[in-house]
Amino acid sequence: MEELRGMPVVKHIAQGVSERMEKLAERGIVPTLAVIRVGEREDDLSYERGLLKRFDSVGAKVVGKVLPEDVTQEELIKVLKDCNHDDGIHGILLFRPLPKHLDEKAIVEMVDPRKDVDCMCLTNIAHTFTQSGLGHEPCTPSAVIEMMDHYGIDPTGKKVVVVGRSMVVGKPMAMMLLKKNATVTICHTKTKDLKSECKNADIIVACAGVAGMIDESYVSDGAIVFDVGINVVDGKLVGDVKYETILDSAAMATPVPGGVGTVTTSVLLKHTVSSAENML
Amino acid sequence: MEELRGMPVVKHIAQGVSERMEKLAERGIVPTLAVIRVGEREDDLSYERGLLKRFDSVGAKVVGKVLPEDVTQEELIKVLKDCNHDDGIHGILLFRPLPKHLDEKAIVEMVDPRKDVDCMCLTNIAHTFTQSGLGHEPCTPSAVIEMMDHYGIDPTGKKVVVVGRSMVVGKPMAMMLLKKNATVTICHTKTKDLKSECKNADIIVACAGVAGMIDESYVSDGAIVFDVGINVVDGKLVGDVKYETILDSAAMATPVPGGVGTVTTSVLLKHTVSSAENML
Repeated sequence: MEELRGMPVVKHIAQGVSERMEKLAERGIVPTLAVIRVGEREDDLSYERGLLKRFDSVGAKVVGKVLPEDVTQEELIKVLKDCNHDDGIHGILLFRPLPKHLDEKAIVEMVDPRKDVDCMCLTNIAHTFTQSGLGHEPCTPSAVIEMMDHYGIDPTGKKVVVVGRSMVVGKPMAMMLLKKNATVTICHTKTKDLKSECKNADIIVACAGVAGMIDESYVSDGAIVFDVGINVVDGKLVGDVKYETILDSAAMATPVPGGVGTVTTSVLLKHTVSSAENML
Repeated sequence: MEELRGMPVVKHIAQGVSERMEKLAERGIVPTLAVIRVGEREDDLSYERGLLKRFDSVGAKVVGKVLPEDVTQEELIKVLKDCNHDDGIHGILLFRPLPKHLDEKAIVEMVDPRKDVDCMCLTNIAHTFTQSGLGHEPCTPSAVIEMMDHYGIDPTGKKVVVVGRSMVVGKPMAMMLLKKNATVTICHTKTKDLKSECKNADIIVACAGVAGMIDESYVSDGAIVFDVGINVVDGKLVGDVKYETILDSAAMATPVPGGVGTVTTSVLLKHTVSSAENML
């Protein structure tokens, strides 16, 4: 089986981004992402660290805005609006979920869609649904597409099963795969025979968020498996796929860690650079 | 086979709508739809006649706005804005496609999303994608859902194959069916073995716009078939399904004409009434 690692894709994206950043630098522009975090959740902090490293490696900038757990709606919106109006900020990332006292749906709509690099607001959600080519798509399903492109996997006419129907991964993933001419099946907790659906697939995208739910009995010989799951079990990061069990059947698969998750911050970087270019 | 006719659903919707309209009438409100037509295309005119009849039958109002084929972008936008600001208008329907000299994407965004009763603008498209329960969904896939509800067809856990991936039917249909917990497969022109996909389906929704493309060889015993196709062949209205060939295999199916298409104007009526209620 061929292991589809994220790092070569990260390097490839960094290379493309660097060339574009040179052109921006000639105009004195450094692509800059504002990262807005409410509170000190460990997974937010961990993602932020990875993000900083990725942006640093190519000379792009991250501006951290940390707000207390009990921040008011008005205070948070004020920070977002300041970012919208700041010409030196090209992308805005807001960690979610927000604490329960905040109206998340209303808040994300305050972000300027042009700076909404992770597809939080309705305008970008609609562009993702229509696959208009405008706006920013969500980073995680975009990372899967980046990996497909990099490893020469063309889903045209292929049977692709997406396991999971979240707005963060499953549903946008299905739309992006449709755009790439795959025959897409979306499965979820109410699917009657998930095993046989997956067995029939040429490509499986596992994004259910259930540790190790996909094992060798779900994977046909020669199938390609993308594992989007990021689950912590006994302090260890594991995917939705029992990777070691599919080594004999799958033709290609992404490991966890070191697979799709590695690429998401590179997508965020790429989106931030696009934003900076679009604002010229 | 049970024929799933549209008319009983139309009557059922009219009944529900009439009760809601009585409450609106107490406040002096008559639900009113502005129908904006550019030019004199025969299919627009035919849809408009059906629409008028449906609204008339319950005492709802249709205001026609007819513009010449060579209307300018500015003139059309002015008409839309007038409708937006007119408190007596609760829904706006704009016939599409517009003539090529007009920027359709920009124009539909001028419609107040609250009055956009056929899901033209990005806000409603996003609500349909997220299945947020807000906004208006497109009328044709909504008509399929109305028929399912009326005839007691629960797609939970069922394998549903949607043939077609348009933004008017296929893609929103897939999202609505996901919300109803179906396992949804979206097929299209690039699907390799459409026949076997359909053969595996408990429910088929044919919305490819290709006359008679689905015949008995696509339909398993006991399957349910919704035919959304509206094609004119030799001056006759025909669906995407060769209806007469599936009578032995399918458990239920919608005819064309007299099926799904009959219900779409009722959905438009229902949306207009909802709009009027939401504006109270």
